[in-house]
Amino acid sequence: MGNIEIVGLVAATLTTSAFVPQVYKAFKNKSTKDVSLTMYTVFLAGTILWLIYGINIQSLSVILANGITSLLAILMLMLKIKYK
Amino acid sequence: MGNIEIVGLVAATLTTSAFVPQVYKAFKNKSTKDVSLTMYTVFLAGTILWLIYGINIQSLSVILANGITSLLAILMLMLKIKYK
Repeated sequence: MGNIEIVGLVAATLTTSAFVPQVYKAFKNKSTKDVSLTMYTVFLAGTILWLIYGINIQSLSVILANGITSLLAILMLMLKIKYK
Repeated sequence: MGNIEIVGLVAATLTTSAFVPQVYKAFKNKSTKDVSLTMYTVFLAGTILWLIYGINIQSLSVILANGITSLLAILMLMLKIKYK
């Protein structure tokens, strides 16, 4: 695997795992007032399309990154709706 | 341009523009208590790596999407620090 593919994998890991501290903060504080519902709705639509794109081009990293990010975005939406 | 490339472009547009409503909400309400500083720090590191990746593989859509997302993430970090 070339160096640049490693950069891509690290980038995917960072932009995916970045959502974990946000989900944790919302869950711990039971407060999401400042979090934008529109953001996570639009973002989820995007990650689902990326998932379709990744399946089509048969790219495991695009599939994995956007599969996990979609789950995290769904979790955030649930927390946002529950703790308006 | 094949259909799947259009899906990729729409996905990139959605996952990039999704941050605009969050930046607007933080700016309008002058409140970011529920927004995770860790998320936007880790996310920014990821988008910068995606930018490097995009430049290396000479992909305009990866460069554009992650260039704009990096700017939005920097804006969110500034708003988060300003309106703790």
